[in-house]
Amino acid sequence: MKARVTVTLKSGVLDPQGQAIQGSLKSLGFSGVGAVRQGKVFDVELGESDLSQAEANVRAMCEKLLANTVIENYTIEITP
Amino acid sequence: MKARVTVTLKSGVLDPQGQAIQGSLKSLGFSGVGAVRQGKVFDVELGESDLSQAEANVRAMCEKLLANTVIENYTIEITP
Repeated sequence: MKARVTVTLKSGVLDPQGQAIQGSLKSLGFSGVGAVRQGKVFDVELGESDLSQAEANVRAMCEKLLANTVIENYTIEITP
Repeated sequence: MKARVTVTLKSGVLDPQGQAIQGSLKSLGFSGVGAVRQGKVFDVELGESDLSQAEANVRAMCEKLLANTVIENYTIEITP
């Protein structure tokens, strides 16, 4: 089983990296670029075969390590 | 219009960050964790209203800045 975890900053949290990328895109000549927000994505291979157990495990991984839940949101997609 | 770009390492490319995360998950007591691969996700607000033009623009952004196409793959999802 494989899980994809996408971690993004909560709205309202300042994203200096995103702003730097937005500036670079403009200086490369891309017009009409609005806000850019950068996040992380994790592909985790899991040994479980039970879907709900796998989801619970990945949720715990996010809460403990993969996401800083004070300033970040996370979504989990599990593929068999 | 909004685009989500997901950038991940090509298979076969060493991912020391992913290995470090895998080790940390094991030391936190998560058993059965296989390989972990980390990537980036970008949410870009676009001024275009034409879907194909927006896709072409984002593809050019990836080729020029958002992805290192020698070692990374990217996928683009555009939502109106």
